[in-house]
Amino acid sequence: MEFTLGQLAALLGGKAEGDENQKVNRLDKIQEGKPGGISFLANEKYEHFLYDTECTAVIVSEGFSPSKPFKTTLIRVKDAYLGFTKLLEAYAEFTKAMLVGVEEPSFIHSSSSIGDNCYRGAFSYIGKKCRIGNNVKIHPQAYIGDNVKMGDNCIIHAGVKICADTQIGNNCEIFPGAVIGADGFGFAPQPDGSYKAIPQIGNVVLEDNVSIGSNTTVDCATMGSTIIRKGAKIDNQVQIAHNVVIGENTVIAAQSGISGSTEIGKNCIIAGKAGIVGHLKIADNTTIGANTGVSKSIKKPGETLLGYMAMDMKDFLKSYALFKNLDELEKRVKELEKKG
Amino acid sequence: MEFTLGQLAALLGGKAEGDENQKVNRLDKIQEGKPGGISFLANEKYEHFLYDTECTAVIVSEGFSPSKPFKTTLIRVKDAYLGFTKLLEAYAEFTKAMLVGVEEPSFIHSSSSIGDNCYRGAFSYIGKKCRIGNNVKIHPQAYIGDNVKMGDNCIIHAGVKICADTQIGNNCEIFPGAVIGADGFGFAPQPDGSYKAIPQIGNVVLEDNVSIGSNTTVDCATMGSTIIRKGAKIDNQVQIAHNVVIGENTVIAAQSGISGSTEIGKNCIIAGKAGIVGHLKIADNTTIGANTGVSKSIKKPGETLLGYMAMDMKDFLKSYALFKNLDELEKRVKELEKKG
Amino acid sequence: MEFTLGQLAALLGGKAEGDENQKVNRLDKIQEGKPGGISFLANEKYEHFLYDTECTAVIVSEGFSPSKPFKTTLIRVKDAYLGFTKLLEAYAEFTKAMLVGVEEPSFIHSSSSIGDNCYRGAFSYIGKKCRIGNNVKIHPQAYIGDNVKMGDNCIIHAGVKICADTQIGNNCEIFPGAVIGADGFGFAPQPDGSYKAIPQIGNVVLEDNVSIGSNTTVDCATMGSTIIRKGAKIDNQVQIAHNVVIGENTVIAAQSGISGSTEIGKNCIIAGKAGIVGHLKIADNTTIGANTGVSKSIKKPGETLLGYMAMDMKDFLKSYALFKNLDELEKRVKELEKKG
Repeated sequence: MEFTLGQLAALLGGKAEGDENQKVNRLDKIQEGKPGGISFLANEKYEHFLYDTECTAVIVSEGFSPSKPFKTTLIRVKDAYLGFTKLLEAYAEFTKAMLVGVEEPSFIHSSSSIGDNCYRGAFSYIGKKCRIGNNVKIHPQAYIGDNVKMGDNCIIHAGVKICADTQIGNNCEIFPGAVIGADGFGFAPQPDGSYKAIPQIGNVVLEDNVSIGSNTTVDCATMGSTIIRKGAKIDNQVQIAHNVVIGENTVIAAQSGISGSTEIGKNCIIAGKAGIVGHLKIADNTTIGANTGVSKSIKKPGETLLGYMAMDMKDFLKSYALFKNLDELEKRVKELEKKG
Repeated sequence: MEFTLGQLAALLGGKAEGDENQKVNRLDKIQEGKPGGISFLANEKYEHFLYDTECTAVIVSEGFSPSKPFKTTLIRVKDAYLGFTKLLEAYAEFTKAMLVGVEEPSFIHSSSSIGDNCYRGAFSYIGKKCRIGNNVKIHPQAYIGDNVKMGDNCIIHAGVKICADTQIGNNCEIFPGAVIGADGFGFAPQPDGSYKAIPQIGNVVLEDNVSIGSNTTVDCATMGSTIIRKGAKIDNQVQIAHNVVIGENTVIAAQSGISGSTEIGKNCIIAGKAGIVGHLKIADNTTIGANTGVSKSIKKPGETLLGYMAMDMKDFLKSYALFKNLDELEKRVKELEKKG
Repeated sequence: MEFTLGQLAALLGGKAEGDENQKVNRLDKIQEGKPGGISFLANEKYEHFLYDTECTAVIVSEGFSPSKPFKTTLIRVKDAYLGFTKLLEAYAEFTKAMLVGVEEPSFIHSSSSIGDNCYRGAFSYIGKKCRIGNNVKIHPQAYIGDNVKMGDNCIIHAGVKICADTQIGNNCEIFPGAVIGADGFGFAPQPDGSYKAIPQIGNVVLEDNVSIGSNTTVDCATMGSTIIRKGAKIDNQVQIAHNVVIGENTVIAAQSGISGSTEIGKNCIIAGKAGIVGHLKIADNTTIGANTGVSKSIKKPGETLLGYMAMDMKDFLKSYALFKNLDELEKRVKELEKKG
């Protein structure tokens, strides 16, 4: 889509200082700007890029006064960073709103319903008895199993697999390749050393405003529900096992894993590659560092943990500093032994 | 599907103590039960839920005698837990058996064959010269490459990718997004610092009763076969590299990784996020703890290992306990030095 | 495909010592060879397999002289290993070249173009305004979003998802289930404790000769590009976050993760399950061991690192050896305390 600088200035409540009829169709980094792009300058550290940029336009803040000549056109707004962010959001909203209709072939069972202003991409699949809300965008090759309920304004990206009985709130976004609601890992050992699968008959519930990253897996509950509460944001390649509960506004970074039946509180931050064993409770506002292994419940809210087996972060760093020079400590002991 | 309590009592060899014509269509947790659901009470710890539950029916054991009034209908069987499990399994079998036929559009090459009572979902793909057995369920958007052989009673879930030449036994289940038989990571360094791909011409063999989790990857062998032996159960997001062999009835939890040419014995248990380097042999009945790194072969069967670099679990925990207070040890040395 | 031993000998510049009209249609391991297969003998350690093999033919080197009778036919070439490798490559090339045409149903938007000698598998999807080169093989159920540019000779395997605006060079191969260019994990905390998604408007650039493993995820940049430079080889289930740059000919093994905005130099080797935090620079020729956590930039090229928090590998191994016997050190201190 193309917009004139005049249109954009109006959207941002600002003013274009030059030809308002120039057109842009792209958002650029200021240092990589090309004609047809618009960028922004919010940090004076980057001011020198303004004098070289080939962008058609640059958004600047009210107080900015250039110290050298430049070729681009300024759009002056109250706060350049907020202005640019507003532009980004408007662009994302606009792009999403434009995506309406059905590409063929696609599959929807006759017993299922889908709301208004939706998109169903080619090769997408919707099983039996699904109820899907308005403004939902189901991208190509996405799979929605039987009896799935989904609210409004969700985006289900290409190749996402949502298994039977999953319930999804409003404004959720699920990125490509994620698998929601497949069977958890439950096997009963048999007398002969083999294992028998325990039927997993629960489901997954994603509340409102949940985001699930690419190739993440969220298993259905054995019975009842695996629950991701409202506002939780889950990154790529995270594993969430059966009957886990993730609290409101908790953030989990890539490649972390949460084992079965563990409950994570709200407003927690879990960094990349962390692992939490099963059947624990993690208090609200807990911060868990990258690669940390948690094997005990965390009862006190607000702690920051780190380590192969989680410890208070400061204590871990103190111990690790000594570990790095453990041969020095050993030498000191040897020295004492000689003297003794 | 709906069943009457009379039908279910007959299936379980028990008796409904109330109106046999009441219908249920769902399995519930007793504490979350709603009308139309059936649950069970096997553990006296949960007995109080019986008196509040809104389930239509609850399965109880022969000897159970209630201490308060309740609204639900009891189905009395020999052992409530086994009865409920039998119900779960019957339900899963029934659901699976119901899934028969072909949804269009789907793709099967004219040189391939598939047995009786099978399901091929919409947008599923079967390449050339495949031989697929009876009662196989191939869900929507699953991919089966050329020359794949598959036994009876397998379930291939949505979006699974099974690459050319893979051989699969009977009763295997592969969960959404898993990739079986793609090329392993083999590159020959060239004099100019670049790498050249080594063609990977082997395959993957899954023996009978193997389960592969969502988004797990099992690479084909460079030559010969990567083998998962019968009864092995692999969780989500596990990586199994080329020419690996996983022994009979071995269990591998989520996000573990097994590097190339390693052979894991039978009846091993590998916990989540463990990593095993290439070209090792791991003895039968080995237990490897969560997040453990294994860099040497394990020759003695039955060991339990833990640690960043695997050690006997008890030794690791002893060392880690001292690591957590390493500054205390350092202070004691300092104290000795002062005295000396 | 079948070839006569005469045809293969001609291809390899060697000579079949026996009936040139015998046919082979498969490459075998020498110890598992069956009639119809061809294998090689390059290492004298395996010579004994020659006398038992049921392969139709075995490639051997000029100087080889057998010490016992055998049933197979020898194809004698200058160097048996190089000869077999040449055969493998010819086979892979041939198989790839054979794959041409369009399977239906498939989807390509009318505004997109694709070159000559390409393959588009059933249920593959190509969005708007894509420009795709010659000899590109797009396997079934692959997804290519809007405005993707791709060079020549690429292989996009089954179920790969390439999101909008991605740019791909020549000779790239992307394995099943990989996701290229989905949104990175960027959320701005709000005053009420919730998070708001920051639109991710950048893209991913894969230069020439890049390989991306199964179920790996490469996020698009927030602005600008996430870049994988030419010749880089990425294994399965690797996570590469927004705005990362991976240097030329760098190799990253399975289940590693690179956090946002980190730049990895060229000719680095990163072993499995390594994790690198965001906003770092890793010097050229760095080697990072399995499961290593890197939390600081590496400035000196050529280092080898290992450890939960990366250290020089030798230092780490020295410290870990003492850690394994930390109770011994503690006992020595206790002994000294007693004496004191």
